[in-house]
Amino acid sequence: MPKRLAYLGPAGTNTEQAAATYDPGATRLPFDSIPAVASAVEEGKADEAIVPIENSLEGSVTFTLDLLIHESSLFIRHELVLPIHHYLLGGPGVETGAIEVIYSHPQALAQCRSFLSKRFSGVDLVASLSTATAVEEMQRSERVAAAIGTSRGAELYGAEVLARSIEDGANNETRFVVLAPTDHDRTGEDKTSICFSYDQDSPGSLHGTLGEFARLGINLTKIESRPTRESLGRYIFLVDLEGHREDGKVVEALERTRERVSMLKVFGSYPRYRAPTRE
Amino acid sequence: MPKRLAYLGPAGTNTEQAAATYDPGATRLPFDSIPAVASAVEEGKADEAIVPIENSLEGSVTFTLDLLIHESSLFIRHELVLPIHHYLLGGPGVETGAIEVIYSHPQALAQCRSFLSKRFSGVDLVASLSTATAVEEMQRSERVAAAIGTSRGAELYGAEVLARSIEDGANNETRFVVLAPTDHDRTGEDKTSICFSYDQDSPGSLHGTLGEFARLGINLTKIESRPTRESLGRYIFLVDLEGHREDGKVVEALERTRERVSMLKVFGSYPRYRAPTRE
Repeated sequence: MPKRLAYLGPAGTNTEQAAATYDPGATRLPFDSIPAVASAVEEGKADEAIVPIENSLEGSVTFTLDLLIHESSLFIRHELVLPIHHYLLGGPGVETGAIEVIYSHPQALAQCRSFLSKRFSGVDLVASLSTATAVEEMQRSERVAAAIGTSRGAELYGAEVLARSIEDGANNETRFVVLAPTDHDRTGEDKTSICFSYDQDSPGSLHGTLGEFARLGINLTKIESRPTRESLGRYIFLVDLEGHREDGKVVEALERTRERVSMLKVFGSYPRYRAPTRE
Repeated sequence: MPKRLAYLGPAGTNTEQAAATYDPGATRLPFDSIPAVASAVEEGKADEAIVPIENSLEGSVTFTLDLLIHESSLFIRHELVLPIHHYLLGGPGVETGAIEVIYSHPQALAQCRSFLSKRFSGVDLVASLSTATAVEEMQRSERVAAAIGTSRGAELYGAEVLARSIEDGANNETRFVVLAPTDHDRTGEDKTSICFSYDQDSPGSLHGTLGEFARLGINLTKIESRPTRESLGRYIFLVDLEGHREDGKVVEALERTRERVSMLKVFGSYPRYRAPTRE
């Protein structure tokens, strides 16, 4: 039976593209929010879930971080990185100069800021819940409309591609993680994601905790903070580190961290992503 | 002549409320994006600008951080913290049970997640560019619609308040900063905001830099990271610390930091916010 892979839908988003890249043979099941994607696995409706976690231009997808911190007991089992290209899409025969309104997800609008301000200054920019719903809203619009979406979205909804790769900067990549009931076995080339917080004075205490990793020679690949949701100025720190949670050095670092913090949650260990080599 | 204070509009948003709290006598000038608010001051159309920077539930306002890091030469001159309450608004006589669609800014929808899933499960949630445009979209909607907005928005647009303080959790506060051509003189109770990055291995190097502040006994009130926009895994760190950039200890810490990093930008020093005491 093919794997059932839940993803943040609808069809035609970048997350669907990531799902198809991760496991082309899986049955892809779209859900309409990041919490719903995770719940699908928790309730047994899907085997694994794929969600975006970080973009090279816009930073972390905070919904995903907050889900991992506060709401989900799933583990990170895989990661993958996809280049992101945005496309300006229109209905059949639309003239670029006549466009009055452009729909897209706020993050896509943000990533195309320069293109939009140069070519479409004064045009209404309207936020949509996804790049796919943007195409639907464009098609329903009573004004001359365009949408920023994916090439897959253009295919699925029968839209015309007016411009390709309109994103600012060439380094637009998104990192996706696969969530599952268990994390991944050791492969020797792994990463581990954790979060922790302190009862008090968190930014000061952070120096001591980072010192434990430094002394053990463990390289950190990411550090980030999120609010505790208790009050302004109290943070939960998220750290990605090299190694598997069953590696001796990582076991020791996590033990020492546990002694310094009031809360430690291990999101899981998983093979470090390697870009496919191209000839 | 009253101060001209640019803010993220339209009228009826939480930022307008913060502008009125900060300087009730100022002439308030709405602009439609955070970059436009800052440009208004840079181009002399306004004396100061007020923008949200951090919310206790949702975390940093990344547009504001990225503006300070990459685009603006303005300084932070003040900070203030406002409690945030969300209101469910409807047209005259609308029945709560008949509502088919609810409009709001994605952050407001996120902050009312529990209320919405309990009381309005299955109702369409549609993202708007602000809590104020949400009320306009509600009024134009062909379906039975509601919006999540502010009490000021209800007044301005003649909407009816269907429910008050519908946000999840009691600790919903937003921190706003006032941007100006110069920062603030020393008051003895100050904060300083900076950002820095490294040529390589940034999360590992961070431990050393935080150590400089620890050794000088300087308390850090915030630490956060943002992408460099160059590639995944490279970060710019944003730190808020206690003290003014002209205080001896802070001068020394900034000098030592400068020796360890490839880029250091001081966003400014400003009086530390104190909540007004209530009888």
